[in-house]
Amino acid sequence: MNYKAIKLVKRPETQIESDGFSLVELNIPELNDGEFLIKQTHMSLDPAMRGWMSAATDSYIAPVELGDIMRSSGVGEVVESRHESFPVGTKVAGLFGWTEYLASDGTGVSVMPKELPAEAILSVLALSGVTAYHGLMEIAKPKAGETLLVSGAAGSVGSIVGQIAKAEGLRVIGVAGSDDKCRWLTEELGFDDAINYKTADLESAVREAAPNGIDIYFENTGGPIQHITFNHMNTFGRVVVCGVISDYNSISPAAAPSWINVVKKRLNIQGFAMPDQFHRFGELSQKVGAYLMKGQIKYRSHVLDGLESAIDGINLLFTGGNEGKLIVKV
Amino acid sequence: MNYKAIKLVKRPETQIESDGFSLVELNIPELNDGEFLIKQTHMSLDPAMRGWMSAATDSYIAPVELGDIMRSSGVGEVVESRHESFPVGTKVAGLFGWTEYLASDGTGVSVMPKELPAEAILSVLALSGVTAYHGLMEIAKPKAGETLLVSGAAGSVGSIVGQIAKAEGLRVIGVAGSDDKCRWLTEELGFDDAINYKTADLESAVREAAPNGIDIYFENTGGPIQHITFNHMNTFGRVVVCGVISDYNSISPAAAPSWINVVKKRLNIQGFAMPDQFHRFGELSQKVGAYLMKGQIKYRSHVLDGLESAIDGINLLFTGGNEGKLIVKV
Repeated sequence: MNYKAIKLVKRPETQIESDGFSLVELNIPELNDGEFLIKQTHMSLDPAMRGWMSAATDSYIAPVELGDIMRSSGVGEVVESRHESFPVGTKVAGLFGWTEYLASDGTGVSVMPKELPAEAILSVLALSGVTAYHGLMEIAKPKAGETLLVSGAAGSVGSIVGQIAKAEGLRVIGVAGSDDKCRWLTEELGFDDAINYKTADLESAVREAAPNGIDIYFENTGGPIQHITFNHMNTFGRVVVCGVISDYNSISPAAAPSWINVVKKRLNIQGFAMPDQFHRFGELSQKVGAYLMKGQIKYRSHVLDGLESAIDGINLLFTGGNEGKLIVKV
Repeated sequence: MNYKAIKLVKRPETQIESDGFSLVELNIPELNDGEFLIKQTHMSLDPAMRGWMSAATDSYIAPVELGDIMRSSGVGEVVESRHESFPVGTKVAGLFGWTEYLASDGTGVSVMPKELPAEAILSVLALSGVTAYHGLMEIAKPKAGETLLVSGAAGSVGSIVGQIAKAEGLRVIGVAGSDDKCRWLTEELGFDDAINYKTADLESAVREAAPNGIDIYFENTGGPIQHITFNHMNTFGRVVVCGVISDYNSISPAAAPSWINVVKKRLNIQGFAMPDQFHRFGELSQKVGAYLMKGQIKYRSHVLDGLESAIDGINLLFTGGNEGKLIVKV
């Protein structure tokens, strides 16, 4: 029996192009003792993938080798097993890649509760949720009453950052790229304010949304909002840099704000990357799960259909075309 | 009897101009009980003064009011006293301002050992030394074997940063603005390497001086070296921003490096300002003193003669014309 998978065959120079991928048909492997076969049902598309596709050696995780199946996290079901801990029917999550099937010996594979929808796992308990929790709670260390501004607020990480911050008693301002996203943030997720960076006068919008200044800036996007937000930071403010997606496809990344305010206001700017925390994934996932159980985290997933839809679909992350966590139903 | 003092009468827009100051003659005041009269012998000129002269309200210390005596730290001798703890002949240090004499009730005035030269007090034990110690040891937290690059390395703070880092077992690279300063850093102070930013090809100079990358960047100056150093930071590197003197006189501060590397390399950028630590001045001063006693800190002072020399002399800090700690012998 055959299955489909997608390999990375060319590294993008700027934009991700469809000729960078190759759709292949592979034979489902015979299982050895201690192995099991996963049928992937849902896979996650994330901004970090752009970095995994580059040859750049100074990033925090090894690039995907040319000719290898593209890396991604996903959820699936065990459909054949010679491994006691992963019987047929087990719901599993892990770094499965762009493929319909894969064999595994269990390394890096987590068992998931059957009743939890794959969308909830990939939207909240997986990379997005633990990234949001770690960046906000462990790096920025928010205090109730502070003001947080999060860019990419309607994105998979940003939407969870804002909701955890609300649960912790902060004033939360989201920056997103459409009126619909902004409405979702304020009306559905409970953000205090939302700014459409494509249409707003950013300077006055930030001033109005944060009349007492900004204590925590959770940065996902870069772009003009970065400089304006930085000018509104309060003394002892913290900037958590999770990503600068507007620069990932660019050959010359945009400059950041002068360090004059870093001195004057004693600001802290801290970058982070989740692979450093992968050994704590279970612990962090449980902490995010607690907010989910209390109904404090809502999510919206944007589901594409079929493995091949990943090839063009990944660019939605860079155009802002996705509405919620981008997921491929395999 | 009269004495001379200098008041701030106009705030600089960019450069500090001499018409911003006014030389006045004042009467030496009658002392009340609990007061004493200080004859200032030496006063310190520091880059931070540029900020004190501005009206900007978002800085970390209140500006000098127009019509007030210009603020500065200095060393002097008690010449008349109605205060038991400060008898005539006591050597004292404090924020005395641009003046020949002042009356004090002892608030904020420290007693200094008589045998310590005023130049050593102002060069090492005062603001420069505690700034260097706090920024390096308490913020950057260096580990032996790491590589540090310090800009403004021949300056009052930078030269002490580099020497403490050497004492702590780091590889130390200094960036300064003349061959003479660079020679002083490597031949007298024991720096491992020094780069003349005015004449060197900065990219190759940094690469050669730091073949294993830079773990700690102690930033005093800003300018083109900032972007190049930032590109050579190692993973988990720390940037301590003490000042960006090249931007202080500028209306539009230069942009800083993109935050892409902040994410990729999980860098930390932390600004600091010593007024936050003034309550720890004695403790910090003792810690710097320990290096001085062991002969691990050398200093060079650039002494100007007479109170009025401060007016033009302060600009030496911004042109890089001073060689060592800038001090006015009153």
